Amino acid sequence: MTDTIGAFVPGQQFRLEGKPGGPLSGLTFAAKDLFDVAGRPTGGGNPDWARAHPVPTRHAWAVQTLLDTGAALIGKTITDEVSLGILGENPFDGTPVNPRAPGRVPGGSSAGSAAAVAAGLCDTALGTDTGGSVRVPASFCGIYGIRPTHGRLDLSGMMSQAPSSDTTGWFARDADTFARVSAVMLGEAIPNTLPKRLVVASDAFALADPETAAALEPMVARLRALVGKGREEAMAPPGLAAWARAQRTLQPYEAWLTFQEWIDRTNPRFQFSVARNLALAPTIPASERAWASLVRQEAGGRMRQLLPPGTILCLPTTPFPAPLCSQPISVLEPLRDRITALCSHGGLTGVPQISIPGATVEGVPVGLSIIGARGSDATLVAVARAMAGG
Amino acid sequence: MTDTIGAFVPGQQFRLEGKPGGPLSGLTFAAKDLFDVAGRPTGGGNPDWARAHPVPTRHAWAVQTLLDTGAALIGKTITDEVSLGILGENPFDGTPVNPRAPGRVPGGSSAGSAAAVAAGLCDTALGTDTGGSVRVPASFCGIYGIRPTHGRLDLSGMMSQAPSSDTTGWFARDADTFARVSAVMLGEAIPNTLPKRLVVASDAFALADPETAAALEPMVARLRALVGKGREEAMAPPGLAAWARAQRTLQPYEAWLTFQEWIDRTNPRFQFSVARNLALAPTIPASERAWASLVRQEAGGRMRQLLPPGTILCLPTTPFPAPLCSQPISVLEPLRDRITALCSHGGLTGVPQISIPGATVEGVPVGLSIIGARGSDATLVAVARAMAGG
Repeated sequence: MTDTIGAFVPGQQFRLEGKPGGPLSGLTFAAKDLFDVAGRPTGGGNPDWARAHPVPTRHAWAVQTLLDTGAALIGKTITDEVSLGILGENPFDGTPVNPRAPGRVPGGSSAGSAAAVAAGLCDTALGTDTGGSVRVPASFCGIYGIRPTHGRLDLSGMMSQAPSSDTTGWFARDADTFARVSAVMLGEAIPNTLPKRLVVASDAFALADPETAAALEPMVARLRALVGKGREEAMAPPGLAAWARAQRTLQPYEAWLTFQEWIDRTNPRFQFSVARNLALAPTIPASERAWASLVRQEAGGRMRQLLPPGTILCLPTTPFPAPLCSQPISVLEPLRDRITALCSHGGLTGVPQISIPGATVEGVPVGLSIIGARGSDATLVAVARAMAGG
Repeated sequence: MTDTIGAFVPGQQFRLEGKPGGPLSGLTFAAKDLFDVAGRPTGGGNPDWARAHPVPTRHAWAVQTLLDTGAALIGKTITDEVSLGILGENPFDGTPVNPRAPGRVPGGSSAGSAAAVAAGLCDTALGTDTGGSVRVPASFCGIYGIRPTHGRLDLSGMMSQAPSSDTTGWFARDADTFARVSAVMLGEAIPNTLPKRLVVASDAFALADPETAAALEPMVARLRALVGKGREEAMAPPGLAAWARAQRTLQPYEAWLTFQEWIDRTNPRFQFSVARNLALAPTIPASERAWASLVRQEAGGRMRQLLPPGTILCLPTTPFPAPLCSQPISVLEPLRDRITALCSHGGLTGVPQISIPGATVEGVPVGLSIIGARGSDATLVAVARAMAGG
């Protein structure tokens, strides 16, 4: 299929058939260029990564799982450099077109996977989510995307960034495909029963643009109809800014530890914004990291308190739809900070989250997210399917 | 001429004839890709610079001057990214081979100009020197190179980095060509009289590798024979490290001010070491910059005291010959710091300096430098020529 939107890494469109007769037979998928595909370089969105690492000889667990259950792999998709980015703008491999909003960013770092699914180039696609890298492009491209419970899936063959926050996620255009793929990836049937209680995250809705919050209201109403009227409550009592600050302390520092040796050895090329975050990470004081670790503990406790079995929480996936492409760093930086503030609970607490499409602001998509307790991934998929049901 | 050493920017070899009958007739020259050549992009060693700037419609003053006096321009040469580098390793345009020491860096940032002259691809070449960018590659490639008195030459059409330290310099393989070009660029005849007093910078020789200091001894002896026995004295009484720290404070901060708007607007690609220095520059406290400015004032006074008319100072241009290519950042960083420590007086005080070839350490070239009072450039050229005379 012709890649009219630049979703695939140049030269990395191919076809690997899945095992016949599996539950995903007939589906096609793509893999973010952070996943190993045997015999092909893992590019990681940076021209100096593959140069410094051997070509993998085995498929990543997630790739092997989809192939084993019948899906066909059709290529590797563009990612922000070494997954450090939330907008999907990559000056080396190119920035995928957002099929639902041309001229706007696709969201990242799983940019190409989201764009390929949104454009109908494949049925599903693998992404990774450390600080929002599946949730944000799902919201911006108007598709389903999941960040599973941290630690639940086997991440072997997936390039790591900040291991205490890294997850493997996936996308789909429709709820049925999303449920089929999710059942396989989670290794668990999608239940028919739904949760009974809803919490609407008042702080997250307040941080969103009013137009975005308003656009999501009909979806929230539908959730209330399915799950129960629920209550409004702040997700992060110390403030989303405090949680975001903690995540923006822990994650870049951990990423620095991950990439430090490679950077020292090869002095790789990066776009300035990526290099700057890596360069500043080792200057973060130990006292700040200690504070951030304590905030993480507290946030985990808060989520356990807020989300007993049978309760889910909803919030805007992103505070606004996709920003325009190629804006100055000084314009994008405060936008990035607000996006992070609606995503940091994932890395901090490890709870699963699904972004559900269905709203638009002036024709540009934005997603509603649902969150449940750790391990409740399949229940969230059931809710997403029920939301799509007539 | 075939560029067997990768000195020229890909696609930027051409020929522009000089005005017939001038004093430089018959000579060829190359220009570092920081100088404007009408109708050709000024690349600046970075793939995102030319993209963001218009193609110049006029030649830089230095290019026009050489063309007007008869030299023919044969191409544009590779530079460290936006002149931020001292080793000459450029991952975008390529790293020029050091013709005198293959496998070792050519030195930078005027890497391609020095390599092209050393390889005999042209007779002379334009470079720039802010923190050592002519002196270091002259030393590493075994050729003549001058950093003129700061503020003496017209820098129009030369990409700036840190204006209070920026200069235009040039290279040659032999002393006669060097003197011919220097007379034109300086607009002043090269005198026949030599200075009468020599100061040997004891602190600079002590900071050099002992093998390098020893290799330069015969050149120092020749200088003594020409200029007078002289005396040994520290150039920088507060320590070369203090001067280096001041220059490493002022120059990156000023470079950040120069490039800030472009960086913000285009989020350019850089190798990590370059981006890191730019990213850390705005974090330098104002108190540190104030201290550095005071050190600069003091250093200027010291140089005026040390170098009355008729006195020159000599020191190793670099503390060692060219390091091996492609070493880890953590290996190169302390080497860079030592190189800077022997160069920072240039940016701090604006005195002119010429690096003279003639010594080797295990076959690898290293230069001896002479420095004079501001404005004494032609006298230094006379000394360089006398050193080469039988």
